[in-house]
Amino acid sequence: MTRVAVIGAGPSGISVLHAFKSAKDKGADIPEIVCFEKQKTWGGLWNFTWRTGLDEYGEPVHSSMYRHLWSNGPKECLEFADYSFEEHFGSPIPSYPPREVLADYIFGRAKKSGLRNWIQFRHTACWIEYHQEQKVFSVIVHDLVNDCQKRELFDFIIVATGHFSTPNVPEFEGIETFPGRVLHAHDFRDAREFNDQAVLIIGSSYSAEDIGSQCLKFGAKSITASYRTNPMNFDWPENWETKQLLTNISGNTAHFKDGTCKDVDAIILCTGYLHHFPFMQDDIRLVTTNRLWTPGLYQGIALENNPRVMYLGMQDQFYTFTLFDAQAWWARDIILQRINLPSAPDMSKHSAKWQERESTLKTDEDKIWFQGDYVRELINQTDYPPLDTEAINELFMAWEHHKHQDIMSYRSNRYRSVITGIQAPLLKTPWSKAMDDSMAVFLNNHCPK
Amino acid sequence: MTRVAVIGAGPSGISVLHAFKSAKDKGADIPEIVCFEKQKTWGGLWNFTWRTGLDEYGEPVHSSMYRHLWSNGPKECLEFADYSFEEHFGSPIPSYPPREVLADYIFGRAKKSGLRNWIQFRHTACWIEYHQEQKVFSVIVHDLVNDCQKRELFDFIIVATGHFSTPNVPEFEGIETFPGRVLHAHDFRDAREFNDQAVLIIGSSYSAEDIGSQCLKFGAKSITASYRTNPMNFDWPENWETKQLLTNISGNTAHFKDGTCKDVDAIILCTGYLHHFPFMQDDIRLVTTNRLWTPGLYQGIALENNPRVMYLGMQDQFYTFTLFDAQAWWARDIILQRINLPSAPDMSKHSAKWQERESTLKTDEDKIWFQGDYVRELINQTDYPPLDTEAINELFMAWEHHKHQDIMSYRSNRYRSVITGIQAPLLKTPWSKAMDDSMAVFLNNHCPK
Repeated sequence: MTRVAVIGAGPSGISVLHAFKSAKDKGADIPEIVCFEKQKTWGGLWNFTWRTGLDEYGEPVHSSMYRHLWSNGPKECLEFADYSFEEHFGSPIPSYPPREVLADYIFGRAKKSGLRNWIQFRHTACWIEYHQEQKVFSVIVHDLVNDCQKRELFDFIIVATGHFSTPNVPEFEGIETFPGRVLHAHDFRDAREFNDQAVLIIGSSYSAEDIGSQCLKFGAKSITASYRTNPMNFDWPENWETKQLLTNISGNTAHFKDGTCKDVDAIILCTGYLHHFPFMQDDIRLVTTNRLWTPGLYQGIALENNPRVMYLGMQDQFYTFTLFDAQAWWARDIILQRINLPSAPDMSKHSAKWQERESTLKTDEDKIWFQGDYVRELINQTDYPPLDTEAINELFMAWEHHKHQDIMSYRSNRYRSVITGIQAPLLKTPWSKAMDDSMAVFLNNHCPK
Repeated sequence: MTRVAVIGAGPSGISVLHAFKSAKDKGADIPEIVCFEKQKTWGGLWNFTWRTGLDEYGEPVHSSMYRHLWSNGPKECLEFADYSFEEHFGSPIPSYPPREVLADYIFGRAKKSGLRNWIQFRHTACWIEYHQEQKVFSVIVHDLVNDCQKRELFDFIIVATGHFSTPNVPEFEGIETFPGRVLHAHDFRDAREFNDQAVLIIGSSYSAEDIGSQCLKFGAKSITASYRTNPMNFDWPENWETKQLLTNISGNTAHFKDGTCKDVDAIILCTGYLHHFPFMQDDIRLVTTNRLWTPGLYQGIALENNPRVMYLGMQDQFYTFTLFDAQAWWARDIILQRINLPSAPDMSKHSAKWQERESTLKTDEDKIWFQGDYVRELINQTDYPPLDTEAINELFMAWEHHKHQDIMSYRSNRYRSVITGIQAPLLKTPWSKAMDDSMAVFLNNHCPK
């Protein structure tokens, strides 16, 4: 029997299990699927933990979540085509839910499908290699609870371990003598730790924007945001200052490229993440930066030089959970031989076309349309339910617009579901005032029983 | 030619290289030695870094050092038999040097021996397995700088990666909602971060004792030290309070087993480390807790079920650098076939005897004599220069006594070198007042040119 190893039970991994389950429910013969997950439960990044660095088994902590994180995009842009928010919560909820609420939805579908038995929790991948002659992969995993290793053979490998877990941490001159706290966004857990502090944020992407806002919301004295290439172009509150790149640090003074300086109490490096697969042998290991078209992956998924290895969710992402679904259905159909792979040169040719288009993208709007088209191309090849990517692209446009209207209150906007046509209700307590954002409070406010 | 892989270029790994170099200098034929080190330079734990969690290549940060760490034992207890402090610094220095000074000494010997060429820096071990038929180890390392893997074959493996790098991090009820900072000692970098804070320290061993003292030295408001089995029996300053085990946390309030509670700003888990070798296949992977006699290791070094694998420095340690030397010389002589291994049953019988003695040890004094005897037994088998372990044991006794006299000023004591007979000079600025403990300042104070 064909055997498929799925590495990771976060959103991408769960999408794969769900894709196979959906085929099975429709009567298909499916291969044996074994999903290895190093955490104690599914959820990937969405498993909030107080831990930082290494976990209780000495494994790198996967999650980069912080306590008061809310969705930074409309839930209508990530709604599953086969499982609506209304189906999950029983009534409509506002467009920007806190992390606990969103995670409950994402993994609610998995719970409903009974996928838990397919997953070996607390199993971390040690070493995966391909045996050319036998056309088989040897997978060595470590059973963390019993502290022993297992070696199994598989016909396909699906890597779904994400790429927002291994921090990219640059060096700055003088940082080794800075007397305050230095941390990467990956280790940020609670904005209240920075109450009354002057915080220096390095970076200008989503982490910088959201962690900076969080710190202000929870009482930081000031935010100084340093950018390398482009500043975040938002209308920030008074105690938010934008600076050119940090050049060096002396004592607790940060010096910037424009010659100015600022005394700070803490430095938060919002400097992105690395694609990191230390458990994959070189010939099947993906090497890429965080970009919209991942070179070497046919359809953004199958390793061109060995398509029995598939990587899910490796792109930079506007689309998230529906993109993982679209990829999962496609990967499934490769394995079920419902989709045939073209010749190697044709795969390269196909990838080159997308990569060429990627190189022409200028604005976020361009990128959203690019990724929407990509998701549509995948969905068109499988039986994933239809998804109106153009309508979703338009929601993304509205989201961008609302952020630029007011970065501190854009989460009060609401949108209409592309799946159900239902308009989201108003958020009762604006994000900036909602100090208790637990699921209990949020649902009680918005879905009274 | 026989090939030996040494994993790690910290104190233990360097001792191995030094042992082979010493044999070579005396005319012996030595095998090819390749040392793989993931950090950018040698030094192991002694490479202070501002980084925590994962490093710039996504590898777990090795060092657990903090900025103002000083030796917590007399330098006379760790002085190399073949390289005195006077030889290194040109004149005597006080008994408790700051980390930079001590590291300069430890790696000064390596520098003098020209061992750098034996080391491949920025190479991390991915996967090591033994091929029974060929009696050979396959070692896969990742060249971090060039981001590619290499596979090489070796006849012997010496694991010298230490066991104070992978934190042991227990869970406490309510810790996931504590609003302040929670960190393990491994991630502690600078006591000044806890200035004016009420700090809760969990644990009662060396990290707890030293990190608590550091925090007071640099202005923490108070230390609350919670123990599981035994409290630290020292005469602490007024703002140090000892508590039974932490039972749970609610908000920022810590509750203890005795029913009392305390509001705290930060929690530092000084809860020890794990022996962690994720790169070793199960049949050659050491599994042990931190204890004085490591089960399964003949002479505390060679894996009984495959003595071509040797582990260095895996014991809990009173003796440190001389213990590593003693082990390194012994491991070398096994490889050079100067020492013959007894039969498997005889190895077990030998280990059982030591393990039985280990089980009778009650006091720190007992443990020191046990380890001194162990070091002597090793040294007696090789040409390592004679070391008066009984005299060193007596120094350890004096050290214990001085700590119990005054834990905040024991570093003002001084001892006589067992190697050179020279009495250490007085420390000019007591530890508690020495805010600048850089090597430049320390040497300028004590070894004026």
